Amino acid sequence: MNAEIIAVGSELLLGQIANTNAQFISKGLADIGVNVFYHSVAGDNQNRLSSVIQTAMSRSDLIIFTGGLGPTKDDLTKETIAKLFQKELVHDEAALQYITNYFVQTNREMTPNNKKQALIIEGSTVLPNDNGMAPGMAFTHRNITCILLPGPPSEMRPMFNNYVIPYLYSKMDVQTKFHSRVLRFFGIGESVLETKLQDLIEKQSNPTIAPLASEHEVTIRLTAAHPSETEAKRLLDEVEQEVLSRTGSYFYGYDDETLENQTFDLLRNNQLTIASAESLTGGLFSKIITDFPGSSSVYQGGAVVYSNALKQSMLKVPHTLITDHGVVSSQCAEWMAEEIRSQTEADIGISFTGVAGPEAQEDKPTGTVFIGISIHDQTHSFSLKLAGTRKAIRERTVKHGFRYLNQLVKEGQ
Amino acid sequence: MNAEIIAVGSELLLGQIANTNAQFISKGLADIGVNVFYHSVAGDNQNRLSSVIQTAMSRSDLIIFTGGLGPTKDDLTKETIAKLFQKELVHDEAALQYITNYFVQTNREMTPNNKKQALIIEGSTVLPNDNGMAPGMAFTHRNITCILLPGPPSEMRPMFNNYVIPYLYSKMDVQTKFHSRVLRFFGIGESVLETKLQDLIEKQSNPTIAPLASEHEVTIRLTAAHPSETEAKRLLDEVEQEVLSRTGSYFYGYDDETLENQTFDLLRNNQLTIASAESLTGGLFSKIITDFPGSSSVYQGGAVVYSNALKQSMLKVPHTLITDHGVVSSQCAEWMAEEIRSQTEADIGISFTGVAGPEAQEDKPTGTVFIGISIHDQTHSFSLKLAGTRKAIRERTVKHGFRYLNQLVKEGQ
Repeated sequence: MNAEIIAVGSELLLGQIANTNAQFISKGLADIGVNVFYHSVAGDNQNRLSSVIQTAMSRSDLIIFTGGLGPTKDDLTKETIAKLFQKELVHDEAALQYITNYFVQTNREMTPNNKKQALIIEGSTVLPNDNGMAPGMAFTHRNITCILLPGPPSEMRPMFNNYVIPYLYSKMDVQTKFHSRVLRFFGIGESVLETKLQDLIEKQSNPTIAPLASEHEVTIRLTAAHPSETEAKRLLDEVEQEVLSRTGSYFYGYDDETLENQTFDLLRNNQLTIASAESLTGGLFSKIITDFPGSSSVYQGGAVVYSNALKQSMLKVPHTLITDHGVVSSQCAEWMAEEIRSQTEADIGISFTGVAGPEAQEDKPTGTVFIGISIHDQTHSFSLKLAGTRKAIRERTVKHGFRYLNQLVKEGQ
Repeated sequence: MNAEIIAVGSELLLGQIANTNAQFISKGLADIGVNVFYHSVAGDNQNRLSSVIQTAMSRSDLIIFTGGLGPTKDDLTKETIAKLFQKELVHDEAALQYITNYFVQTNREMTPNNKKQALIIEGSTVLPNDNGMAPGMAFTHRNITCILLPGPPSEMRPMFNNYVIPYLYSKMDVQTKFHSRVLRFFGIGESVLETKLQDLIEKQSNPTIAPLASEHEVTIRLTAAHPSETEAKRLLDEVEQEVLSRTGSYFYGYDDETLENQTFDLLRNNQLTIASAESLTGGLFSKIITDFPGSSSVYQGGAVVYSNALKQSMLKVPHTLITDHGVVSSQCAEWMAEEIRSQTEADIGISFTGVAGPEAQEDKPTGTVFIGISIHDQTHSFSLKLAGTRKAIRERTVKHGFRYLNQLVKEGQ
């Protein structure tokens, strides 16, 4: 199946938004082994949209549309497709009922143009919209399958995952089912990881092995093609084992897991509380841990001691420690972690001190970082030399903090 | 001039990255009045890329390409374009010299395939790459202008701003020059703003008025078309004055200014120091203010008092205040702001307390927020009722904090 994705909307051509829908759908299609050969974007103009669709009809056998299903005159995706495929638009009773109910529930008046959203192309399968009003639809005509999805990502994404993927599986040869697994790594660069796996990557066929760098992490996507899920799982297990035997110390989780939520869950499940003392990260650790709903059962609070004066007044860092070792030191990191733990009576104290840049501090270069963790009546410190911008150094510092925390909590279990 | 943007790269079709280059270029072209009618993406495949380019040649008079200018065999943008326009590729001496120097400077060996990056399409204008090796190029052939840009945004963006825009201006009729100005608003929704300006928006012609919602803010882009910059400025001033007479209390700045950097600069220029006490925002304020290089001259530090116990131990919030008013109260916000200011000896103390959700607290619903600011020997508190997710409530709370801070510092000047 060769696919093409057509996004409809003048806001894309004006640069008001990026076409993240095409990225999302492409990734989803790659996961199930469908080749995407083209993305196209057209505005809310019937002639130009028609010509884009005609080109797609001449070269692709799966065309996925996003956008232009709304109630206003500008929204003309299904009208244009219906015309080109010589099909009628018909009212879908279930969709109409759903839209009517929505207006009753939200106590708003339904204007006549909203009925337009319940129109579907005759003979198509309706894809329910669990997060909005405009339903999606799918049909196959003369060996071309068209799938129409709403534009807002909050509506499109769940519809794609819950209804489009099963629809496509039903159209595909069962022999070609694909099974994916993502392995997540932190603390190793993409090129080093690739070098360690070079021979595996070169001889890969089934499963395929695709490394990808993203947000200070590296992931490896393993994809196995097999009619039997059990056998596909066995193939994935086998190559995973080989990959982890070479790079396992940097591995932390699967699929959509993050280092942050894995660590947060670990703390919560172990009923451990934590407090933080941050210098160079300036509150980034506490910001991230309080992003999680329910964080108050884990996170107590902490001190952001950006100035040296505050390190002394809020965290009682001794003057002699600063003159002997400086605030950018393992000694200071350990003191900060112990002191915040004792002040807050939390089970764990974590601290971050270092040079985020752009300027050096205490003659220590940008990227010099110390992390302290006080846990189980022991205090550990970790020293890092990080490269990159001020932003990258701060972000990576906190990620390293989560990683060490993760390790120490697991070791104490 | 009718433009089309073609991105080349299989990583886009695999969904590994989003086509943010097309968004950036579209915005830049909209600013100078060039219509973009299509975006297309093709992979690193000569046949399919050729067919996409041929379609573009049949319908657009400006085609901007991104990607595929690198040294490897996969990179075939200029080769494919040269073939279709029946042009030769020739070595550009300046580009070759630049690439050779780059390898000498970084003490690396230059492999022969790197010379490929110095090949340009004969007769084209070379667009220097100030942030990488592959130069861009531009040429016009039979009324079609082609512009080739590198794929990495860090190379493409400065090349577009510094070399493509002037090149396009040189091609355009001087009568049609466009001048833009963005007005930035916070604290008002897009639909309310639009309603207040409805008649202006409806009768708009020159300047045009385009509202856009983004990241808890609303912007209005004013665009005037006039050969004289002075006259264009006068037209923009006139409509700006009318817009601000209706919505001025929500206006805070122009173009790329943000509420955060404007406030930071204001504090720094007034040599004011600040400390923070955060509950529901959990360090987000301190994280944002320490994002700025040089923040240590302004930001002292602060307390993240997520648990009520810490509010009492670190910030000495009296037990009676909590039993009488709760921690989600203006009284608690004011206490926290005063206490952190006095503990840190900063000029200003700012505090955030409230309910980020998902659960209510002290019988106060999600979105109940109090901000305290202690400044110039006075303490103010502000009460907000915010809607949205936990994330949105936390982000908007901090934005409101910056807004009130901004107002109070300006009033004290």
